[in-house]
Amino acid sequence: MTQKAKTAITPTRAEDYPEWYQQVIKAADLAEVSPVRGCMIIKPLGYALWENIQRVLDDKLKTTGHKNCYFPLFIPVSYLEKEAAHIDGFAKECAVVTHHRLEKNAEGKLIPAGQLEEPYIVRPTSETIIGEAFSRWIQSYRDLPMLVNQWANIVRWEMRTRMFLRTSEFLWQEGHTAHATPAEAEAETLKILDLYADFCENHMAMPVIKGEKTESERFPGAVNTYCIEAMMQDKKALQAGTSHFLGQNFARPFNIKYLSAQGVEEYVWTTSWGVSTRLIGGLIMTHSDDNGFILPPKLAPTHVVILPIIHKEEQKAEIMAYCQQLADDMRNQHYANRAISVEIDTRELTGGEKAWSWVKKGIPIRVEIGMKECQNNSVFMGRRDKEYKERQSIDRSEFLTTLVSQLDELQTVLLERARQFQKQNTVSIDNKKAFYDFFKEGTGGFVLAHWNGDAAIEAQVKSDLNVTIRCIPRLDTAPTPGKCIFTGEDSAQQVIFAKSY
Amino acid sequence: MTQKAKTAITPTRAEDYPEWYQQVIKAADLAEVSPVRGCMIIKPLGYALWENIQRVLDDKLKTTGHKNCYFPLFIPVSYLEKEAAHIDGFAKECAVVTHHRLEKNAEGKLIPAGQLEEPYIVRPTSETIIGEAFSRWIQSYRDLPMLVNQWANIVRWEMRTRMFLRTSEFLWQEGHTAHATPAEAEAETLKILDLYADFCENHMAMPVIKGEKTESERFPGAVNTYCIEAMMQDKKALQAGTSHFLGQNFARPFNIKYLSAQGVEEYVWTTSWGVSTRLIGGLIMTHSDDNGFILPPKLAPTHVVILPIIHKEEQKAEIMAYCQQLADDMRNQHYANRAISVEIDTRELTGGEKAWSWVKKGIPIRVEIGMKECQNNSVFMGRRDKEYKERQSIDRSEFLTTLVSQLDELQTVLLERARQFQKQNTVSIDNKKAFYDFFKEGTGGFVLAHWNGDAAIEAQVKSDLNVTIRCIPRLDTAPTPGKCIFTGEDSAQQVIFAKSY
Repeated sequence: MTQKAKTAITPTRAEDYPEWYQQVIKAADLAEVSPVRGCMIIKPLGYALWENIQRVLDDKLKTTGHKNCYFPLFIPVSYLEKEAAHIDGFAKECAVVTHHRLEKNAEGKLIPAGQLEEPYIVRPTSETIIGEAFSRWIQSYRDLPMLVNQWANIVRWEMRTRMFLRTSEFLWQEGHTAHATPAEAEAETLKILDLYADFCENHMAMPVIKGEKTESERFPGAVNTYCIEAMMQDKKALQAGTSHFLGQNFARPFNIKYLSAQGVEEYVWTTSWGVSTRLIGGLIMTHSDDNGFILPPKLAPTHVVILPIIHKEEQKAEIMAYCQQLADDMRNQHYANRAISVEIDTRELTGGEKAWSWVKKGIPIRVEIGMKECQNNSVFMGRRDKEYKERQSIDRSEFLTTLVSQLDELQTVLLERARQFQKQNTVSIDNKKAFYDFFKEGTGGFVLAHWNGDAAIEAQVKSDLNVTIRCIPRLDTAPTPGKCIFTGEDSAQQVIFAKSY
Repeated sequence: MTQKAKTAITPTRAEDYPEWYQQVIKAADLAEVSPVRGCMIIKPLGYALWENIQRVLDDKLKTTGHKNCYFPLFIPVSYLEKEAAHIDGFAKECAVVTHHRLEKNAEGKLIPAGQLEEPYIVRPTSETIIGEAFSRWIQSYRDLPMLVNQWANIVRWEMRTRMFLRTSEFLWQEGHTAHATPAEAEAETLKILDLYADFCENHMAMPVIKGEKTESERFPGAVNTYCIEAMMQDKKALQAGTSHFLGQNFARPFNIKYLSAQGVEEYVWTTSWGVSTRLIGGLIMTHSDDNGFILPPKLAPTHVVILPIIHKEEQKAEIMAYCQQLADDMRNQHYANRAISVEIDTRELTGGEKAWSWVKKGIPIRVEIGMKECQNNSVFMGRRDKEYKERQSIDRSEFLTTLVSQLDELQTVLLERARQFQKQNTVSIDNKKAFYDFFKEGTGGFVLAHWNGDAAIEAQVKSDLNVTIRCIPRLDTAPTPGKCIFTGEDSAQQVIFAKSY
C-alpha cells in the first residue's frame, strides 16, 4: 500500500491547508461542487451527518420549549425595505425572483415571462416574513414568549464560496422568539448561545469561545449579536453560530404588539439565532488529519465498519457469519442515545484499499475479520484517532464489552486535542508592535488584547492585517481592565483578534 | 356550551365542503395563508404532523436502501430544455430567478440588479439536476442500483391554490434511482408504490387505490406513472402520491451511462417518486368531522391531553400532582414505536372551552381531572372518534393498562370508516347514459367503467363532466375484460373515473 507510506490526503495540512480541506471532503465523499453557481451537493455521508446534528439540536430546542414551523421561501422586497440595516446587509447578494413562467422566443429559446408586480427574494434569513406572522399571532401577554424554530434552506449570493463554510445555498435552523421585556429576550439570546456552545463541545468535540460581537460585526438589524468562535487547525477563527438580540428593530416596522396584563399596548422584544451546515465545515477542519476526516462518535452516521478479509472462497461463509453475529451484538448496544451503527463492507477490494477508504471517511472504529479472528474468537481493531499501524487484536468479548467506552474515549480525545490546540495557539499581547508582528510574521492564532472600543481602530487592523475582533468574550469571572494596546486608553476587558473564515 | 348544541366547525361538510376544509385547518391551527402568493405558513401542529410523516417514511426509505442527499434549489433553464415533455410540464408555472442583487433606483426604491447570464428556476422537481449528478456518480454496473432520496421544498407557480392540497411552495420527498435494466427500474417503481400505499393505510388510516395513470395524466417525462388515489369525504379523488418509471428519457439527455459486467457501455433506467405535504390535506379530508380535525394516533404529535378542572385555588396542588403522575405513567408507555405523548393544558379557560379546543385539534384522547377523579382514583375520558357526550369515567389503573389498545382501536376505527366510505361510494357502471347521469345528477364518487384506451374520449369526458380517469387499478386478480361504455369496443379492464383535487 503506497498510501501507508505517504499520507492518504494530498496535499497535507502543512503543505496547503485550503486545498487539503477540499481533498478531505472529496476523499470522505461528503459533498461536491454543483453546476449551479456557489451551490453544493451534499452527498450521503455529509447529509447523514447533518441529520445527526439536526436530531440532537432539534431535541434540545424542543426541550427548551421551541416549536417548529415552516414559513415561505420567498420574501417580498417591500418587507426587506422595512428595516434599514437589514436591507444594507442582504440586498447586495440575494437571488431575485422576477418572473413566474418561461416561454419560447422566436429562436425557440426559453426566456422569462410573466413578470411579477413585486419581485421576491429567496430568503437570506426570515426575520421579516416571521415578523409579519408574529404581528398576527401575538395579541396578548398570554401569547408570550412566542418561541419558534424553522429548519430551512437559505440563499445568499456569495461571491467566493467554499464547501460547507460559505455557499450560495445552505441549510440551517433559524430560531425566532418574541418576549414581553428586553431582559427576557436577552436571557433567551444567551440561553441559546449556551445551548449552541454545549452542542459544539459535547457533541461535535469542538471547543468554542462564547462572546459578543462588536458593533461592526453585528447581524444587520440586531441590537446585539452573540457568537461562538472556534479555532480551526490553520489557527483561523470560524464563527460557528450566532444569537441576536433584536430589540424592537423588527417589532416596530412589523407592528408586533401585545396587550400587557395591565391593559397597555406594548411592542414585543425579539431574538433570532441560527446554526447551519457550516458546522460540518468546522467539524472537518477541527478534527481531520492528513489521512482524512475524523468523525466524533456522538455524531458519526456509522460507528463501526467491519471489513471481512476473505482470501479463499471456501472461507467466505464462516467469516461472513462471524461478521454478521458481531454486527448484531454491536447493534444491540447504545451510545449517546443511539443504537450502535455498524456497516459490513463486502466490496470486492483488497483489505488495505477497503480499510483506507474508511480511514478517509473518518469512521471511529474499523474491525478486520479473517479466518484467524474466527478461529481465535477475536477481532483486529483500529481506532481512527490512533496511527494506522496501531491496530491490534482483541478478544471478541472484551471488544464488545469495551465498545461503548472506546467510542467515548475517542470522543474525549478529540475534544481534548482541540482544546489543547486552541489553548496553545491563544496568546495575550500587550503592545501594538508585538500584535502586528504576531499576525505579520507569526503562524497565526487567537490574540487576547485590550482595545478601547473604537470602530476606526478595528477597521484599521482589518485593513492592515485582515484580522478582525472575533468577539468580546463572555467571562465566568470579573473582567480585568487594562490599557488599549493601540491608544493606551482604558479598556474594560481583553477582546479576541484573529483571521477568520 | 353553545358549541355542543351546534357543531364546532361552521359551515358543516354538508353545507359547504371547501369552506369546511379551510375552517377545520383554522380551528386546529394547522396552517394559514401567507402574504406570499400561494404560499402557506405551516404552524406547529401542522409541522409536527409533517415531522411524524417524515420520520416514518424516512425510516421505510432507509430500510429499503435509499440514501438521503441534498441537491441545489436552483435548476439552470438549459437543464429543463433537455427533456421536451419536462419543459412543457413545468415551464408554464415556475419561479424564475433572473438577478442576484437589489439596488436603489433614483426614487430610492429597491429594484433587481446584477442580471444572471442564464436564469435559474426554483426546482419544481429535481430529475434534471440529479440526472446531471448521476452522470458523474455512475460509472460501472457496480454503482447500480443508485438509490437516492431528498427531503426538500418545491415551487410550482399554481394559479389556484388551497392549503396543503395545492400551494406554490410545498414540502416533499423525492426519490431518484438508476438501474441497469428496465425490469429493475419498474420493480423499484412498484416497490415504492406499495410502500406509499402501506404508509397511507397503516399510518394515515387512509385507504388508497393503487394504479397506473393514463398517458394524458403522466408525469412530464415519464414512460409510466403509477399513483395512489384516495377518496375524500366529498367523494372526490385525491392523488396522494406518484411513482414514475422514466425509462431512458433522462438517462439519454443527461448522458447517464454505465459499463456493464460484459464491458459494454449502456444507458441506465431511472425512476422518480414523491409524496408531499399534500398528504396532510388528504388526512384532514379523510378523517375530520363537523367538530374538526381527527388525528390518527400513529401520527398524532400529541396522543393524550390532560385537562385539569380546578374550581377552587386550594384544590390546585392536589389536582396538578395527580395530573403530573398520570402524564408520567403514560409517557412510560409506547405506541407505534414512539413514547406516548402527553400535554397538560394549564390555560385559564373554562373546562368546556379547553376540551373543545382539543376536539378541534383532533387529539385522540382527552382526559379531564378534577377533585372527583383525584378522590376516586379515576379519569374522565373522551375519545375523538366518539360523540362528545360519550365521555366516561374509568378507573385510573384500567385507563393506563388499556391506553395503548384504546389508541389502536381508534386507529382501526378511522381506517375502517374510511374504507366503508370508499366502498359505499364506488360503483360499477356499464353504459354511457348512466355514467353521465351519475356525475351530472348524483352526489359523486368513484366509477369503475370499461374504456377503450382512447385519449380523445378521456378528453371529452373531462370537458363534459370535469371527470378524469384517476387510474387503471392494479388488481390482485386477473382483470375482467368487457366493452367500452363509450364506444362498445373491447376493453381489458375497468378503470376508475372521478372528479378530483
